[in-house]
Order: sequence, then structure tokens, then C-alpha cells
Amino acid sequence: MKLILPNERSQVDAVSPVVLVTCIDNKDNSNIITLHMYMRLSPDPHLVCINILHQRYSHDLISNSGEFVVNFPSIALEEAMKICGSISGRDVDKFKEAKLTPIPAKRVKPPLIKECYGHLECRVTNKLQINNRTLFVGEVLSTSVDGELLINDNLDLIKAKPILQKNRNYYTISEI
Amino acid sequence: MKLILPNERSQVDAVSPVVLVTCIDNKDNSNIITLHMYMRLSPDPHLVCINILHQRYSHDLISNSGEFVVNFPSIALEEAMKICGSISGRDVDKFKEAKLTPIPAKRVKPPLIKECYGHLECRVTNKLQINNRTLFVGEVLSTSVDGELLINDNLDLIKAKPILQKNRNYYTISEI
Repeated sequence: MKLILPNERSQVDAVSPVVLVTCIDNKDNSNIITLHMYMRLSPDPHLVCINILHQRYSHDLISNSGEFVVNFPSIALEEAMKICGSISGRDVDKFKEAKLTPIPAKRVKPPLIKECYGHLECRVTNKLQINNRTLFVGEVLSTSVDGELLINDNLDLIKAKPILQKNRNYYTISEI
Repeated sequence: MKLILPNERSQVDAVSPVVLVTCIDNKDNSNIITLHMYMRLSPDPHLVCINILHQRYSHDLISNSGEFVVNFPSIALEEAMKICGSISGRDVDKFKEAKLTPIPAKRVKPPLIKECYGHLECRVTNKLQINNRTLFVGEVLSTSVDGELLINDNLDLIKAKPILQKNRNYYTISEI
């Protein structure tokens, strides 16, 4: 191994999970944003965070409503994930455009994406301003998961086939 | 797909990248902590964050020195990663224990881990208290990478074989 200083510094980073985050406007119209800046913060209380550019439509929706849902897509949703990451909800209904199905959440107003294998219903508890982005901390109020992926209460991630990304290259997981 | 409310709510989550974070005490002794709460926050300025329990030895080291290095391990370092995540640097020298090699960083005092394929040298710019943890935001001052993994300035992640985890199960990536 020969360590070098790379020309493209931002190339040196981890692969990160892709999530589809749903939110609503003040007329209860829903939107979806594809994010790869998602992280779990704490198991108990169950907290997660997402990081969104100020200019994105979903940024103001989540700021105003104080709620969002984190939906976990499998690789079967790769095209839908790309659509939700490349157009703005200001202009189109992303559920229609990406052929996804909204279903009611238990504890928050934004819908779940039916085709995703897992969902975290979140209420914003904290915000951190980071230059031109907001880091939203969310408390998870309810979770749901595709029952076929549970083995003795454990989520079978290999079967779930999550999407991961780095620099717009997409991957899934495999056993070591 | 049949959505259910799981018994083990914390099972519903993304897989996350594993990183080895290095830091130093006030006598320049170095320590390593294994973390799976790491996220990139922004490409320009290049910002990342890590989330650490207050009680961990590295928490106070990073709080006091204001510096840390994020080191990316490949699956060849699975055992070292487990050692650095299961013992405390208060008691032992983790570099010796895990058979890892410290080498000098360019811009910060904590060392790089030679055996890791990529490194981010970070200075703490912000802290957010989240119950019993601190979210440290770090500005990346310098990066280095295994030159054999770069193809036209792009990091070949498939060749790098990063470690990912969820609920102490470990994975790597594969093409979709």
C-alpha cells in the first residue's frame, strides 16, 4: 500500500446508505427526497439524523411540518431512487413519477412508501445549521418493516438488498 | 410484502459504514475507537461528523484536543476493528493490541492507521449534545488514500472492500 494525497479529495470517503425521505406541505401534499446523508444517532431514545441542502424543496417542508419518514429502498427501487433524487417536488408528484405508493403512517402525517422494506416515522427534535445545509435530528415514533425479512425479530439485510452509494455509484451489501 | 410493527424496533435501520477513529491525549499518546456512527456532511467545505458516547475514553480525548482522524478499514482488518471496539484505551495501547501501525498525519496530531485504505484528518468545528452522546462535526484538513485503489482519481470501492455493519453483523459491498 502506498499512501498518496489524491487530486479529488472528496473521493476519499465511506460508502453510505441511500434512503428515501417523505414529507408533506401545509396542504398535506406529499413529497419524496433521495438522501445519502442519513445516520442513526442513538438506539434509546431512538434518534436518527438527515442532512439537507437549504435550497431543496423538502428542506422547507420538513422545517415547517417538523415531521419526516425515512424509507429504506432495496435495489429493486434503483430507478425510483434516481428519479426522486433528480427532479423537484415543486414541479411534479414524485410518487406518480417514480411509480411509488403512499400509505398512511401510524404517528406522523407524511406517508410511508409501500415499496420500501422499512420505515422510521420521525418528529424533528433538533436542528443544526451547517453552512448551506440543515442537519435534522428526528425522534423515531414508530417503525414498520416487511415481515418477510424478519427472522426471529432480526432484519435479514442480505435479503433486503439495501442500496448504498458513493459519488453516484450504487452498490448493495454482501457477506464478508 | 406485508408491513408489520417489529418487536425489536431498533432492528429497522440502514446498514452503516464502519470507521476507525484515531485521537490523542494531552501527552500525545494515541488511541483508536471503532465507530459506526459516521456521516459525511458537506463536500465543500469538506465536513464530516462522528457520534460518540460520553463515557468512551476517546470522547474526552477528542473534546480536549479538538482533532481526530477518520480511517477507513477494509475487511482484512475485521479482527482489528473488533478489538478496537471492545476494549478501552484507558487500559491498553490499541495499536499494539490490534497490531496496527501509527504513521504521522500531515495536518493534525493524531496518527493515521497505516493499514487503512483512506484517511480524513479533521479539526472539530462544532459539537451537538444528543443525550448521552456528542456529535462532533469535523472539517477535513487533509486526506490520503492507498494509491493502488485510485483509477483516474476515482476510488475503486469494490477493490477497497469497506466494512459495513448493522447490529454487530458485518458486511462488505458488491455491485448491484
